[in-house]
Amino acid sequence: MVHADSSTFAAGISREEAYTQVLEQAEALFDGQRNWVCNLANTASLLWHAYKSLPAPSSEVNWAGFYVLDPSKPSQLILGPFHGKVACQTIAFGRGVCGAAASTMETQLVPDVDLFPGHIACDGDSKSEIVVPIRIPASGDDGEQKTKLVGIIDIDCAVKGGFDEVDRKYLEKLAELLGKACDW
Amino acid sequence: MVHADSSTFAAGISREEAYTQVLEQAEALFDGQRNWVCNLANTASLLWHAYKSLPAPSSEVNWAGFYVLDPSKPSQLILGPFHGKVACQTIAFGRGVCGAAASTMETQLVPDVDLFPGHIACDGDSKSEIVVPIRIPASGDDGEQKTKLVGIIDIDCAVKGGFDEVDRKYLEKLAELLGKACDW
Repeated sequence: MVHADSSTFAAGISREEAYTQVLEQAEALFDGQRNWVCNLANTASLLWHAYKSLPAPSSEVNWAGFYVLDPSKPSQLILGPFHGKVACQTIAFGRGVCGAAASTMETQLVPDVDLFPGHIACDGDSKSEIVVPIRIPASGDDGEQKTKLVGIIDIDCAVKGGFDEVDRKYLEKLAELLGKACDW
Repeated sequence: MVHADSSTFAAGISREEAYTQVLEQAEALFDGQRNWVCNLANTASLLWHAYKSLPAPSSEVNWAGFYVLDPSKPSQLILGPFHGKVACQTIAFGRGVCGAAASTMETQLVPDVDLFPGHIACDGDSKSEIVVPIRIPASGDDGEQKTKLVGIIDIDCAVKGGFDEVDRKYLEKLAELLGKACDW
């Protein structure tokens, strides 16, 4: 298959169908390929083209991509592959929506970013945002099974209320797949 | 400055002016930041938005991004950050336009990809291509100063003859900046 065809989403499909295609295409692309830069780069493209094939508010997504742990500084995220306008390079844990997702390891679904304490305005056009942590299994000091943050999925939308529980459900599935399918 | 503003190119500027803005913005973004994933991700965005602000054929650019050396396999490129449709994950040195740029360490300016021996059709829409090697200084066994390939800039266009010597000149400047400004 020509790789670019993965980015083609049929007109008139539902959000659930678009996300299902993203997950299926991502899984197929990751088969035999565990490089995280390569896999995040193709996933950002899949997500971008999925949103652009859907009606508003999904079509109003203006940034889709990733931040990962900054190898040069603990408790800091650094920009990974994305589609959209130029973005902030680093984000401290706890700062803004991305930083909150990183420090809490919980999905942040923010209908209005201007009401979010400490929101970082990389792009003033972004009005709502969803950020999903990507975690991998890790063993605690006591041998207890824990999870470790390796990065986040970050999607911005140019209108308020761009995301809901459907986005949360599928992006959390995608984060789980990315955690398992890449060498971090 | 809000980072997204870097992606805004004024209407009516020339290709030379757009590339000059890309180079200036890239240099500013790289100041204090040498992470190659982060810097290539923002550079792909800058290039994409520059092309989209220009008249045809530049506006017909349908893929702008990077391949880097695959850490898991010598003489192979692996996909880096990009803007455009889902792309081939790995490319062997010598294979297609990207592989030719990697093995010769010379810019490949291809007005019609269908006439290029061994062209890899990641996307059938791509009709012309320019690929510029990113090199860093390296010492040879005899102490002689040499250069080493670390990646390539790859730009595809959906019409034939999408690129000329202006693109070569500025993309080679960009490759030189990327070679110097990132830790590879």
